[in-house]
Amino acid sequence: MGALRLPSLALLLSPCKSLRLVSRPLPLRLRLSTLKAAASVSGGAGSRGLSSQSLAKEEPSLPPPSADRKPSSSYEGSVTPRSVDFNAWYLDVIASAELADYGPVRGTMVIRPYGYAIWEAIQEYLNVKFKETGHSNMYFPQFIPYSFIEKEASHVEGFSPELALVTIGGGKELEEKLVVRPTSETIVNHMFTQWIHSYRDLPLMINQWANVTRWEMRTKPFVRTLEFLWQEGHTAHATLEEAEKEALQMIDVYKKFAYEQAAIPVIVGRKSRAETFAGAIRTYTIEAMMGDRKALQAGTSHNLGQNFSRAFGTQFTDENGQRQHVWQTSWAVSTRFVGGIIMTHGDDAGLMLPPRIAPIQVIVVPIWKTADEKNGVMNAVSSLKEVLHKAEIRVKIDDTEQRTPGWKFNFWEMKGVPLRIEVGPRDVANKSVVVSRRDIPGKPGKDFGISMEPSVLVTHIKSRLEEIQTSLLHRATSFRDSNIVDVNSYDELKEAIAQGKWARGPWSASDAEEVKVKEETGATIRCFPFEQPQGQKKCFMTGNPADEVAIFAKSY
Amino acid sequence: MGALRLPSLALLLSPCKSLRLVSRPLPLRLRLSTLKAAASVSGGAGSRGLSSQSLAKEEPSLPPPSADRKPSSSYEGSVTPRSVDFNAWYLDVIASAELADYGPVRGTMVIRPYGYAIWEAIQEYLNVKFKETGHSNMYFPQFIPYSFIEKEASHVEGFSPELALVTIGGGKELEEKLVVRPTSETIVNHMFTQWIHSYRDLPLMINQWANVTRWEMRTKPFVRTLEFLWQEGHTAHATLEEAEKEALQMIDVYKKFAYEQAAIPVIVGRKSRAETFAGAIRTYTIEAMMGDRKALQAGTSHNLGQNFSRAFGTQFTDENGQRQHVWQTSWAVSTRFVGGIIMTHGDDAGLMLPPRIAPIQVIVVPIWKTADEKNGVMNAVSSLKEVLHKAEIRVKIDDTEQRTPGWKFNFWEMKGVPLRIEVGPRDVANKSVVVSRRDIPGKPGKDFGISMEPSVLVTHIKSRLEEIQTSLLHRATSFRDSNIVDVNSYDELKEAIAQGKWARGPWSASDAEEVKVKEETGATIRCFPFEQPQGQKKCFMTGNPADEVAIFAKSY
Repeated sequence: MGALRLPSLALLLSPCKSLRLVSRPLPLRLRLSTLKAAASVSGGAGSRGLSSQSLAKEEPSLPPPSADRKPSSSYEGSVTPRSVDFNAWYLDVIASAELADYGPVRGTMVIRPYGYAIWEAIQEYLNVKFKETGHSNMYFPQFIPYSFIEKEASHVEGFSPELALVTIGGGKELEEKLVVRPTSETIVNHMFTQWIHSYRDLPLMINQWANVTRWEMRTKPFVRTLEFLWQEGHTAHATLEEAEKEALQMIDVYKKFAYEQAAIPVIVGRKSRAETFAGAIRTYTIEAMMGDRKALQAGTSHNLGQNFSRAFGTQFTDENGQRQHVWQTSWAVSTRFVGGIIMTHGDDAGLMLPPRIAPIQVIVVPIWKTADEKNGVMNAVSSLKEVLHKAEIRVKIDDTEQRTPGWKFNFWEMKGVPLRIEVGPRDVANKSVVVSRRDIPGKPGKDFGISMEPSVLVTHIKSRLEEIQTSLLHRATSFRDSNIVDVNSYDELKEAIAQGKWARGPWSASDAEEVKVKEETGATIRCFPFEQPQGQKKCFMTGNPADEVAIFAKSY
Repeated sequence: MGALRLPSLALLLSPCKSLRLVSRPLPLRLRLSTLKAAASVSGGAGSRGLSSQSLAKEEPSLPPPSADRKPSSSYEGSVTPRSVDFNAWYLDVIASAELADYGPVRGTMVIRPYGYAIWEAIQEYLNVKFKETGHSNMYFPQFIPYSFIEKEASHVEGFSPELALVTIGGGKELEEKLVVRPTSETIVNHMFTQWIHSYRDLPLMINQWANVTRWEMRTKPFVRTLEFLWQEGHTAHATLEEAEKEALQMIDVYKKFAYEQAAIPVIVGRKSRAETFAGAIRTYTIEAMMGDRKALQAGTSHNLGQNFSRAFGTQFTDENGQRQHVWQTSWAVSTRFVGGIIMTHGDDAGLMLPPRIAPIQVIVVPIWKTADEKNGVMNAVSSLKEVLHKAEIRVKIDDTEQRTPGWKFNFWEMKGVPLRIEVGPRDVANKSVVVSRRDIPGKPGKDFGISMEPSVLVTHIKSRLEEIQTSLLHRATSFRDSNIVDVNSYDELKEAIAQGKWARGPWSASDAEEVKVKEETGATIRCFPFEQPQGQKKCFMTGNPADEVAIFAKSY
């Protein structure tokens, strides 16, 4: 991840801030401790909110003034508690933790360094896995002739309402409108058709890291933005079986990333016909349960069959000299995953990052009063930092003099840093430190008197980071499992959904009935999970035999 | 770099190929050895040329049929010799080495895995250096309101002819046209204005890796394309001096990359007023001499002064409580650098890659006749590969059975792989291998009887790779220095330029006279180099005193 420079936090009580108060109540921000900290600062000015308005315009993202937002007793930070208003909390965390900001064009987002570093952690892991599984990175142009989009029937139907079109280039009206890529299957096939000739050219397995544009009407930072970053894998194979194997392999890579790195216990499964990607014969998905129990589709892998190869004439000569259309897959994970991490692990105090993807794993807060004390403490924290850095632990010292230690504790908690080390004059004298876990508040989360002796300290920190990683996954898994209800009738489903839960039940009803469920309850089939209960099943809607259970939920 | 999958090379004598022959002579490709190799292959079909036409439309890139293209005696490969036709050679190398292909939209380029891997090597190095020098990565939206571009006067003048405009989004005509970013200074300043409040927020130092679009009329793969990939750094500082220091620091990072990684002896200097970036007060550049002696601007770093901060009102409160406009820089390197690497080091046989950025540093070619021999040889090459891979040497075995060893030698030479290891039955018996250097043809470049003993082999390979790295830089430096002429009159300049060389001479004449030189000779001021000769100087054009020498050259 390298060095991460964080712009210093803007002052709370500034002219800008005051201006914001006119249009937005500040119910919980100005608790005494925060006020005190802010009052001790001189100079500086700034706004803590997301700076522009464009995304907020479309979704009622700023919480309305309401009387029922009560401070929870443990709350000390500057964000709306999650338990009070999930959506306001989400936007507050993104603004306060400086993860992202609104771009000037409606629905666009600026990904700030702290948020981008999380995306880089996602990239670093997946990039290695993609290469290990035989894929090469490359890059396709983002401008696609409009006629390409029209070639695959369901693809154009799925994407045409969301397109951004370039109609003027170099001062002239273009003869053919250009689509700013919403996804690249069409241009990929156009090129594959020129590169693939014989079975020896297969499998062709590539990936690109790119920006894509979809003209979304309801946007939300990270979750759904007009432009977003992603990787899109595209492969071509000689047989359907190979394509199917590849699609399954890649959804498994995503699943492992979710569990092992992001500590998100996603449910892996197959999409229903209605929810299958525009142009695919089968879509696999990882579905994550957010803190508000809505589902987030966090990654998908498509078996495209021969839909695109037939539309684009992507053929190869097989071992018998026969011309065949290739079988294809595509698969993607995007910056939406960052939103999933925020909404899975965060709590009232703000962000909570799994250690393996946290840009900063350990924040060191030096504490002193006199100049003498400062010398000793700063020497100690510098060597601490060196020791941890050498052990490849991502560590940062917060030595700004404008903030009190208490303010810093709250701030870095809000930023979701997994561990905090406090070093005061007494710690220096005892050659020991206090280590506090982000995920366990108060005394139970603190280890006192941890020796500064390098090997002891490094071992302690590493094992604590691993514990936190495991603990976040366990916590999210318990939460998920306690919020999935097995249903055997439509009424039971309605009740589960009304309670905000996920409903799991046998399903073999029609597409029309799936639409009816959506219209009546707001829930969609998130997937037919790979893990299926044993035994005979009856569709809870029709009473007919059913092969599988499906999971229904409201979703982002 | 990880594993790099290379689609198998298409057959030379294919229906597609034959089709190409109609419109294009194949003067040198069908030498006997190549033909023999091709004839031994069954199945497969394909074209070796760039697949579409769009880039070629604008620039006469395909060489005209001409009688004066004579085969050079050492030539065994499949590309037009560099000495015969530099431009045809360049395009042949890009096609044959599978570096890039034309996109369907005029002027766009698909970067193929082998070309993209070179870009990844550039990214990996620079990304670390940017973080070491205190910059954080982030991401700005690519759509910029048209009004932003108009805010900085010289910026709009410089960029408006090259803009791609989105006018339709989600099926509706947009109220304000959106510019697809040609560069991000305007949107960066829009955001900086919201993030920067006090001197404590400075310096603000960020970078983004992104695609940019410029509606270029004359395009050429890597060198100038409608869309390209780059990094753009943007910083804001409290003083002019800091901004200047930053701009100089970053051009130095680029220079070091060029020398130490790409083995390109760039000349570092300052641009003339006429060639300064649209919106900057000063532009620093690294200028590289290509194999045809044209200059390539390979990276730039701009001191933007307060031009954008005044246009966008990007202010901070200084330590005395005064509001000040920030001082800024921006700096960029793009996929053009890949073109620079190709055109600096390549020779008649094709690409020649500096080991530090070569996607494959060592190609291993097993040679056998009988099944028995095959077993022994394949076992040996597998363990060779393991040994080198463990030593972090990027190694690949070419074990395809459709090609003769001779064909493979030519192919991997053409792909520019620095070292080749040949392993035959006799080598297995002797526990030794033959190692051939790409940069020294024939026997002088071969080391015979190198022991397969891991430590011996690794040491040998590593030192050879370092030698090649150094040798490529030396060779390019000699070439550069023997093609720069010191001039003391306009006539001398004209003569040097007419000979295809660079001219260096004292210059203090007017912008108008700079334009005149361009119109009359085709050469522009590439830079006022940092390294200046001692002593008094007289402008070669006017005879007036001159502070500096300038370098003039024709350029890409």
